[in-house]
Amino acid sequence: MSALARLAVDTGANVAPGQTVVVSAKLGQEELARAIAAACYDRGAHQVEVDYLDPYVQRERLLRAADEALGEVIPWVRERPGQMAEMRASWIGLSGPPAPGLLDDVDPGRIGRDRSALVEWARVVDRREVTWAIVPGPTPGWARTVFGDDEPDPLAALWEKLAGVCRLHEADPAAAWWRRSTELSGTADRLTEAGLDSLRFRGPGTDLTVGLIAGARWHGGGLTSVWGRDHVPNLPTEEVFTSPDRERAEGTVAATKPLLVSGRKVEGLRVRFAGGRAVEVDADEGAGVFRELIRRDPGADRLGEVALVDGSGRVGAAGLVFHDTLLDENAASHIALGSGFTDLAADEAGAARVNSSGVHEDFMIGGPEVDVTGTTRDGREVAVLVGGRWGL
Amino acid sequence: MSALARLAVDTGANVAPGQTVVVSAKLGQEELARAIAAACYDRGAHQVEVDYLDPYVQRERLLRAADEALGEVIPWVRERPGQMAEMRASWIGLSGPPAPGLLDDVDPGRIGRDRSALVEWARVVDRREVTWAIVPGPTPGWARTVFGDDEPDPLAALWEKLAGVCRLHEADPAAAWWRRSTELSGTADRLTEAGLDSLRFRGPGTDLTVGLIAGARWHGGGLTSVWGRDHVPNLPTEEVFTSPDRERAEGTVAATKPLLVSGRKVEGLRVRFAGGRAVEVDADEGAGVFRELIRRDPGADRLGEVALVDGSGRVGAAGLVFHDTLLDENAASHIALGSGFTDLAADEAGAARVNSSGVHEDFMIGGPEVDVTGTTRDGREVAVLVGGRWGL
Repeated sequence: MSALARLAVDTGANVAPGQTVVVSAKLGQEELARAIAAACYDRGAHQVEVDYLDPYVQRERLLRAADEALGEVIPWVRERPGQMAEMRASWIGLSGPPAPGLLDDVDPGRIGRDRSALVEWARVVDRREVTWAIVPGPTPGWARTVFGDDEPDPLAALWEKLAGVCRLHEADPAAAWWRRSTELSGTADRLTEAGLDSLRFRGPGTDLTVGLIAGARWHGGGLTSVWGRDHVPNLPTEEVFTSPDRERAEGTVAATKPLLVSGRKVEGLRVRFAGGRAVEVDADEGAGVFRELIRRDPGADRLGEVALVDGSGRVGAAGLVFHDTLLDENAASHIALGSGFTDLAADEAGAARVNSSGVHEDFMIGGPEVDVTGTTRDGREVAVLVGGRWGL
Repeated sequence: MSALARLAVDTGANVAPGQTVVVSAKLGQEELARAIAAACYDRGAHQVEVDYLDPYVQRERLLRAADEALGEVIPWVRERPGQMAEMRASWIGLSGPPAPGLLDDVDPGRIGRDRSALVEWARVVDRREVTWAIVPGPTPGWARTVFGDDEPDPLAALWEKLAGVCRLHEADPAAAWWRRSTELSGTADRLTEAGLDSLRFRGPGTDLTVGLIAGARWHGGGLTSVWGRDHVPNLPTEEVFTSPDRERAEGTVAATKPLLVSGRKVEGLRVRFAGGRAVEVDADEGAGVFRELIRRDPGADRLGEVALVDGSGRVGAAGLVFHDTLLDENAASHIALGSGFTDLAADEAGAARVNSSGVHEDFMIGGPEVDVTGTTRDGREVAVLVGGRWGL
């Protein structure tokens, strides 16, 4: 517990003396939230505010609030990201799905219409105006979702798996993550230098071509805030990513892992893209909630991110579906519908091709059976990721 | 549980269809908070936000945040009352002390310097720009504080006592409270009409004269918001009160019940007033935290409220010290240091004599052995409360 808290504070958000920190947790994650607050004060934090979401109150809202209330963010919540940016604050979020079944009887349409992400927050992150990190926040409910009822102590088993993927067993986890962050940023630089015009994913059920923006950078590992503070926003992180051209995605893609959208399971997802838009959605389970998601706002049906994960990462090796995007997105290559990262574009013309939305929903499309090839701007075809290994 | 939730929502804050409601709870009060959220949606609330305070995070802050952080309220918290006023929102708070001993090793000076109340919130309440209510929020820790370890099921015993004082056993608790509210407001009107210039409290260790403001009203029972919504802010409520003259309090007073100041017990409190200011503080336990409280800001050592409670109320009859101001203040007559209620003044000259502060701390000075007499503006002495019975 305290090792994960220290990692979140010292390496993840890299909290500085005098900084104000907001910790976003769900009920059930109190112990880790408190350990993080303590670790923030160890670093000389000015104030630490822990903001708890009660999933049962959220359920009540989804079941019973007026339709027009669902898309509405309360003023002081809407203004907080901008105020945090002014303060050069830090934010630490604890990830993890809600208790199993909690939202099963909620109308997927209403889940889809509710705001889970904020346009205001996306803007602050995009401009690197805060230092931030998301780390896993284990709960008994999450442990049951992952391990079912067969495991005698599912919570201990989840902690053990998370300690592994978060490199907490290393002698110096912080050093291990700064090192991995450097590796990922090296891979991202090679991808940027390759000057790719498009990527093609091919595997069972998948033949998708994603257009890339001329000059757009790839990114991996840590970030640096506008005032120069290094931090590692996702722990664990094993991906390199860029924002694709919002108008160029063609073909069909099959998700290689189940995902949770607003707490509802989406399994066997298949999406067809044309002209950059998701035009057809099918799934073995949860197609409705996904269809609602992509109608949430005008940019919700276009891609904001394409990410590559090679076979050397710890998350894929754990061999589990965590049902949590932070972890599962680092197990395999993925794409995200919704908001992109304008700071990866080379210029204003490029930034105009990055997608904008209040949504950002990742889903896994990669794995050992899915090969990724690229076409460069001068027309050469190059192997990018074959059998889980880098081709460049 | 659900009866108390309904009382808080239907009678306390009197939540209206379409209203946004903020519920402030502490961890440990989740079940009641959720029942209140559900009851708000029963009334057609627009949105319900439950804001949880984690007493362990608060403890960490009190122990370890920088000195200058303690008096500082984070921007989005500071702006919330004004935004709630604009929305004509509703607020429901759950009272109750922190877990026994949680703050015992915290420097009382730091507790005193931390903001527990907000000037911004006091202003919104004073202007009646929200409908609001505070109800008790039982926790296992509170139950142990009240009953110690002798009671086999302290939480059940606390619920039983609270059900009694909250009139939940009546056939129609809401009707019972609207009736009691009318009674209290009748008593308040008689006190207003009596035209008192001062009150004198006399009993063991107490001989205190409190000056009143010419034309200032007494208030009891419910309130009406600026847009005309009746509500009953404190449940239970058994008091009638006014704001005294901030410059006129003379004599000594002994608290008749222990009180908690920022979670620390103050027992056997004795205060001497001169020229309206608390000039000497002594106590068997906790004098330090009380001395810090009255230095918190320039108005913290002057009276903002004087309240009378007769012997017919349910709280006094319960024969318990609840260690919670909401309940204990309704057991006996009391005074409060800190902010007063300018809306009780007759005019601007009167309002200027009402005290202003970020603090509002009640302490009990009444009981069957303490008699209260008044002196009218035309010099007559009248019995106000003798042996726990109204003299007028």
